[in-house]
Amino acid sequence: MVNSAVSEFEGYATRALDAPSMVPRREPVVFGCEADGPFDADQLQTYEQQGFLVIDELVDSDFIDALRDALSRIVNDPALSDDERLVREPGSDAVRSVFEIHRLDPIFANLATDPRVLGRVRQILGSEVYLHQTRANLKPGFRGKEFFWHSDFETWHAEDGMPTMRALSISISLTANEVHNGSLMIIPGSHRTFVGCCGETPSDHYRDSLRAQQVGIPGEMELSRLVADGGIELITGQAGSAVMFDCNAMHGSSGNITPYSRSNLFYVFNSVENAVTEPFAAEVPRPTFIAARQVEALR
Amino acid sequence: MVNSAVSEFEGYATRALDAPSMVPRREPVVFGCEADGPFDADQLQTYEQQGFLVIDELVDSDFIDALRDALSRIVNDPALSDDERLVREPGSDAVRSVFEIHRLDPIFANLATDPRVLGRVRQILGSEVYLHQTRANLKPGFRGKEFFWHSDFETWHAEDGMPTMRALSISISLTANEVHNGSLMIIPGSHRTFVGCCGETPSDHYRDSLRAQQVGIPGEMELSRLVADGGIELITGQAGSAVMFDCNAMHGSSGNITPYSRSNLFYVFNSVENAVTEPFAAEVPRPTFIAARQVEALR
Repeated sequence: MVNSAVSEFEGYATRALDAPSMVPRREPVVFGCEADGPFDADQLQTYEQQGFLVIDELVDSDFIDALRDALSRIVNDPALSDDERLVREPGSDAVRSVFEIHRLDPIFANLATDPRVLGRVRQILGSEVYLHQTRANLKPGFRGKEFFWHSDFETWHAEDGMPTMRALSISISLTANEVHNGSLMIIPGSHRTFVGCCGETPSDHYRDSLRAQQVGIPGEMELSRLVADGGIELITGQAGSAVMFDCNAMHGSSGNITPYSRSNLFYVFNSVENAVTEPFAAEVPRPTFIAARQVEALR
Repeated sequence: MVNSAVSEFEGYATRALDAPSMVPRREPVVFGCEADGPFDADQLQTYEQQGFLVIDELVDSDFIDALRDALSRIVNDPALSDDERLVREPGSDAVRSVFEIHRLDPIFANLATDPRVLGRVRQILGSEVYLHQTRANLKPGFRGKEFFWHSDFETWHAEDGMPTMRALSISISLTANEVHNGSLMIIPGSHRTFVGCCGETPSDHYRDSLRAQQVGIPGEMELSRLVADGGIELITGQAGSAVMFDCNAMHGSSGNITPYSRSNLFYVFNSVENAVTEPFAAEVPRPTFIAARQVEALR
């Protein structure tokens, strides 16, 4: 059921619009303060202004090895080969993403509550938090495909019913993110503008959108304006580095023709005060392995 | 007619192979010496070892503006809209490449004989030279597609009948080449190894290969070995910068989802002592707008 009441009065208008739109963000970006956690005032200000923050070494190389081993076990587990949480590359059998990693191995669940992660997340969101989504993205060498520009919040709002911009992602690198292997690109400052997208949400859109998105794509004019204001930041870093970014930060990545695969873990944290409702622009919510519908505060 | 006699005794084996192959280059890389031209001994040694050399400012910004204007006139000339020298992006009408630019505007012909260009080319190739191919590559913003790894010489040998590795390309940037907009990637040192490719050459292969190559593609194992030895260099630079690279240097580029188009001019110079013969692995040579068959030494 489409959340038309909320959509009309409180939601951000998107999907099936006559024309793309750009409206200012209504919510704060940083909900906590310096006293609440590990980030100092400068870091909080950077996050507020840029919409993201790079952490050079969030975890050490031994722990990265353990995470990689766990992911490898999941990808190669015959019992999971037909599991819908394993999404494959268009035109190949190579695994592109694994969803709900925190339920597939305890090491991934523990990482979400690690003080280095949870402390920073709570500080930014200024409340208790829960996991909206977790996944591993594996961009294989030679044939990793691009992800076009998008705001995660646009999809979470339209298809999952996330009411406001009080969520963030943390991406943790399992392999080196280089200038040439399809690393994350973010438009600094783009999180301050909501870009409404044309195109109606098809039924079961998530099946295709996880491989190659067709709707929820911002227009070229809107992207050009965001880039003219903020430029483009290509996020590189060694395995173990991480980037935290706001739910509405416009981001994407190029394909990967190098032999170096690019693998990352993604954790999406939502404030417990921002629990999902009915979708704002879709008939039914996406499956729970993609977007949790139960608030379970992390401790 | 396939040049089977030469192929058997002197050519580099490629296309329709049972398995990919890697054989050492037989020819020198630098045919001239320091006394012959503008490059000093260090630069010649770098070119010899890496297979390419970056020139930070080959031409100034006024001249770049004039080149861009000339290219824009060609792309927008209604008389040329159906010309086969204008190649369009897969799935769009956007022009991806313009061939034979030196015959479409005198400014492009003059650039080929400019001493800053021709002096360097003659010094590397150690002889008089002629133009094997010229083109402009326009990688449009938002939807520029990738070019997978390839050695130009593999194609020129197989499809055009270029006998030996005594040719080079110079790529001149008309727009900034950034880390994020699909800039040229080269594998340093790869020019010293010829990688034979599987797959027979289809008739009229050039029509498709200019949009998205299907044969003449090196194997993943061979690419991994080259990259393990030499790494990957991503070539960035401002408009007016240039890179000269050996005909057998393995190179490619990622797609471009940024709003910034990436346009370059490509000039391919061949030694007059290396004139093309019959193709080594194709029934008929490619059209002359793609690969010249007449030796006209540049002066």
